[in-house]
Amino acid sequence: MKNKEENKEIVLAKHPQGKPTQENFQLKTIDMPKVKDDEVLLKSLYVSVDPGMRGFMDKGKDDAAGNKFELHQPITSRTVAQVIKSNNPEFPKGTIVHGRLAWQKYMRMSTKNLEKVDPDLAPISTAVSLLGIPGLAAYFGMLNIGNPQNGETVVVSGAAGGVGSIAAQIAKLQGCQVIGIAGSEEKIDYLKNDLGIDIGINYKKTDNMQKAIKDACSDGVDVFFDNVGGDIFDAVFAHANRHSRFVICGQIADYNASNPPQGPRPQHDLIKKSARIEGFVVYDFKAEFDAAKKQLAEWLNSNQLRYKENLIEGFENIPSAFIGLFEGENIGKQMIKVAEPD
Amino acid sequence: MKNKEENKEIVLAKHPQGKPTQENFQLKTIDMPKVKDDEVLLKSLYVSVDPGMRGFMDKGKDDAAGNKFELHQPITSRTVAQVIKSNNPEFPKGTIVHGRLAWQKYMRMSTKNLEKVDPDLAPISTAVSLLGIPGLAAYFGMLNIGNPQNGETVVVSGAAGGVGSIAAQIAKLQGCQVIGIAGSEEKIDYLKNDLGIDIGINYKKTDNMQKAIKDACSDGVDVFFDNVGGDIFDAVFAHANRHSRFVICGQIADYNASNPPQGPRPQHDLIKKSARIEGFVVYDFKAEFDAAKKQLAEWLNSNQLRYKENLIEGFENIPSAFIGLFEGENIGKQMIKVAEPD
Repeated sequence: MKNKEENKEIVLAKHPQGKPTQENFQLKTIDMPKVKDDEVLLKSLYVSVDPGMRGFMDKGKDDAAGNKFELHQPITSRTVAQVIKSNNPEFPKGTIVHGRLAWQKYMRMSTKNLEKVDPDLAPISTAVSLLGIPGLAAYFGMLNIGNPQNGETVVVSGAAGGVGSIAAQIAKLQGCQVIGIAGSEEKIDYLKNDLGIDIGINYKKTDNMQKAIKDACSDGVDVFFDNVGGDIFDAVFAHANRHSRFVICGQIADYNASNPPQGPRPQHDLIKKSARIEGFVVYDFKAEFDAAKKQLAEWLNSNQLRYKENLIEGFENIPSAFIGLFEGENIGKQMIKVAEPD
Repeated sequence: MKNKEENKEIVLAKHPQGKPTQENFQLKTIDMPKVKDDEVLLKSLYVSVDPGMRGFMDKGKDDAAGNKFELHQPITSRTVAQVIKSNNPEFPKGTIVHGRLAWQKYMRMSTKNLEKVDPDLAPISTAVSLLGIPGLAAYFGMLNIGNPQNGETVVVSGAAGGVGSIAAQIAKLQGCQVIGIAGSEEKIDYLKNDLGIDIGINYKKTDNMQKAIKDACSDGVDVFFDNVGGDIFDAVFAHANRHSRFVICGQIADYNASNPPQGPRPQHDLIKKSARIEGFVVYDFKAEFDAAKKQLAEWLNSNQLRYKENLIEGFENIPSAFIGLFEGENIGKQMIKVAEPD
């Protein structure tokens, strides 16, 4: 039965110039793989797409982490999958796993880079969303880099997205006044009514972001968790308090830029404010992943934290879902549901 | 005798446009002051001038710290002085003090903002140089913000100046490979031969700073202590290591800029490198000043640290000494000797 089912993959057909489009991707029919010794056969269930992947699609030599996508090879991203055939007794048939997997409906794998998902902790899709890189980025970026203190003012950009929505709620849990920046009235409603964020700013309806930040942050800005960059960074930075922390998590405004973008140099203000701009990648905190996942699951299960996945159905829609990230349309973590677990 | 001596002051005659010039200052003859109850009469001995003062000369409303200089009022800067007449028994005649004092040969003062100088700790002029703001900025900026570890590569710009020369030597004392950037062959010789800095880069003789940094820092840059900013920052930042720290101490390249200068946005690289750009002012560490002064004096007295004051003689030469800071000519801390202590 399974061997009769068609297998598909999506490869990088062309390096994007600027924003990615459909023609950068190609859907191909491929053979069902044959599992070798010690390997497992996986069925993709939930595929996660993230803006940061855009950088791996550029032409050029690979980065140190081996992240670059090769032309005519399948794209990879964080995926939840199920073992449907196993030659490895430690990963029996039925096991739910996650890892950075190829965009293929079925694939054979060594289990080396797979992690088991505990279905009792939270819904399995959260292994690549709330309990995966997005949730961990929000957790460590906000708590370890931003370090918000009770009563401080925290601003989050991309606040309705997969990382921002968690970051904003974590700041609320620390007792902060939280301002979320997002790009539609629907998102602002979601932030205020569903997530309990204090003030929402719709940057698409705001002529003067500097003034909007000033009005929203009457005590200035202590922490900015930035998923966007560009002019929005500048507007928030203009209201930096002394000893403020600017956490650089993502720069979606810049991912598609062909040249390094220019902006006002922040150094002079960094001195005046004794302020700090700091970037991070979530793997900096690998040793603390398990404790963070447990805390995030606890907040989720006790309704202290809400999480929305923006779920698109169908393997062939993965490129559209990825492209949509750069249109600013998504509320919550963008995911593609490829199949139900058996 | 003293009352017959002429008194002089130097006032801000015009707000500078760009670099300061002689016409921004005016030397005036004034009366010898009469000391009131609880006050002291001070004689200026050593006046310190720093690039950061330039920012206080601009037109516009005062900053929070009350630092702005008023037109037609005397400039103030860190000065070592001697009590030559006293109505306050806690500051008897002969006491050496330092504080932010007016550019006046003689002045009457409440003792409220004066600190006593311990002549046994180190030469008294160091109260406003090595053991004053410049030395403390180097100490806390390098150790508390940069936090260099044994074996790391540390770059210092303005490395022959009053702050940079200390910062560079403190990094050497931590067991680092230290690269100093300065603007003349004489300064490079001083860095290498007098201070024991590993590699000197004369930016005025370097066509391609990025390449010069790459050649000098074969293991990349872990800490950059920046007194200059602008293109030099960009060149060093291009070779940032993972978890590198960019300490923003001064931005002499920008102090005279009328508009906020533009440059490449650092955010994308901050993420890739998990790096940090952080500003500070020395008063952030006020609680630790005494311990730092003791440590700096100990290094000086045991010859582990060398310190050069660039001493110009004569009260009337204070403006020239200040203007000279922006010509990049000074080796060591720029000071003006006004008088000998009695």
